[in-house]
Amino acid sequence: MQLQQLTLANEQRCFAGRQLRFQHRSTVLNCDMQFSVFLPPQAEHEAVPALYWLSGLTCTDENFSSKAGAQRVAAELGIALIIPDTSPRGDDVADDPDGAYDFGLGAGFYVNATQQPYAKHYQMYDYIVDELPQLVEAELPVSQTKSISGHSMGGHGALVIGLRNSERYRSISAFSPICQPTACPWGKKAFQGYLGDDQQLWRDYDASLLLAAAERVLPIRVDQGDADNFYPEQLRTDALQAANDKRQAGADIRLQAGYDHSYYFIASFIEAHLRFHAQYLLAK
Amino acid sequence: MQLQQLTLANEQRCFAGRQLRFQHRSTVLNCDMQFSVFLPPQAEHEAVPALYWLSGLTCTDENFSSKAGAQRVAAELGIALIIPDTSPRGDDVADDPDGAYDFGLGAGFYVNATQQPYAKHYQMYDYIVDELPQLVEAELPVSQTKSISGHSMGGHGALVIGLRNSERYRSISAFSPICQPTACPWGKKAFQGYLGDDQQLWRDYDASLLLAAAERVLPIRVDQGDADNFYPEQLRTDALQAANDKRQAGADIRLQAGYDHSYYFIASFIEAHLRFHAQYLLAK
Repeated sequence: MQLQQLTLANEQRCFAGRQLRFQHRSTVLNCDMQFSVFLPPQAEHEAVPALYWLSGLTCTDENFSSKAGAQRVAAELGIALIIPDTSPRGDDVADDPDGAYDFGLGAGFYVNATQQPYAKHYQMYDYIVDELPQLVEAELPVSQTKSISGHSMGGHGALVIGLRNSERYRSISAFSPICQPTACPWGKKAFQGYLGDDQQLWRDYDASLLLAAAERVLPIRVDQGDADNFYPEQLRTDALQAANDKRQAGADIRLQAGYDHSYYFIASFIEAHLRFHAQYLLAK
Repeated sequence: MQLQQLTLANEQRCFAGRQLRFQHRSTVLNCDMQFSVFLPPQAEHEAVPALYWLSGLTCTDENFSSKAGAQRVAAELGIALIIPDTSPRGDDVADDPDGAYDFGLGAGFYVNATQQPYAKHYQMYDYIVDELPQLVEAELPVSQTKSISGHSMGGHGALVIGLRNSERYRSISAFSPICQPTACPWGKKAFQGYLGDDQQLWRDYDASLLLAAAERVLPIRVDQGDADNFYPEQLRTDALQAANDKRQAGADIRLQAGYDHSYYFIASFIEAHLRFHAQYLLAK
């Protein structure tokens, strides 16, 4: 690793690879950020492809790292895991006025905010799409070949970013994603706050609307537990399924009996998601 | 499940099995307790063998449940995971006078305390050996066939309990265990506080001394990271190795290069430990 803009904050051996945490100054977000990375053993010798993981409300980069059990299969397959934080951070970063969990810190919704005081820092879309991959690919043994996945708010982010940037990613997956944020309480609150009243702007961040209109659609896999407290009201999986059917987009959307919204659900199916992405990430 | 003394506090689907949390009144500990259980899918149809997992300092029953990734292989093998708390709990349970992390709450050291004010509640040895298995086997689809494992303080507990009760368990394993508590700072503080000045009593809770003198030794596997902050001073793996050599006990004690004391280490090797125990738990 040739670290210049990245500072290594922590390193732990894991499945014969390296679980790492980095600090850096984000120009796009206008604040200091942390993110986690798992480098598989193969990265000691060559640049490896990467799966970006976008986490859900209230999470940091550490939830997926410690709870999903993804490193085992990533080590086997030779895939790096890039795990960003869920919002800008710092004392001067505006939070929800009431300190609610579903807006502001820990809840950036992967949009570029247009409304103040949020626009100053909340540019998570550009951070994930541009700034972070540039840093990772410049300073870590990670190639430009990448796919994207996430959970809940992060599943929304993965779908939106993958659908809007089909030339940059190989495949998309999501656990329990917020499929239609323009029509659910979490999404409407977030988009109102970050993007304002012009609902036309909201459409660029709605996976169901994007899928229905997409010219080119990457391979997509979605898993949703049917015992999820937030299903269907906040997640609206049916809207994504309807768009998929209308567009004949071929997304593989699965309802999993008995599973909830937690990391026990993610852990149960992360191997399937990694092997799904590996088909595309490891293709020559 | 025919719950009488146990109250189900939480249930989550995980790897097609059930991650459960129970509350109950402990007669032995004289307080209310919680513990976690993973029941594999096979437990829907038959009583399954169990691996007891004893956690380390500061942990509850939830650390192993959420971070070790053990459920995947337990579900495949048909082994229940029984995960107790690390000390008695409650407002009237005496803690370390200075609130230190290494004594009192979260730090029961799996001994039967003889010294007040601790003796009133800190009877963790009897809780793990007798009361908890009786409850589990009476009310859950879990057979009497069991093995025991643990981490750090819990690795000490697993070794001590398994060595002293070779007729009750099939096999023993440990990650980063405190191998010679009579001779390390953590152990000397705990044994002084719980057991008092008579160091003859301490010997019943020292895995290295027990192994050297054991008449019958179960199959044992131990893994220790060589980048562990607490190695060798607190853990004294060499003392266990010396006892193993002297006794020709056949314990498989492995030093793992680059690994630390964290759950990333446990996650990396838990599959190997589960398959080690399965050889004995699933033997007819």
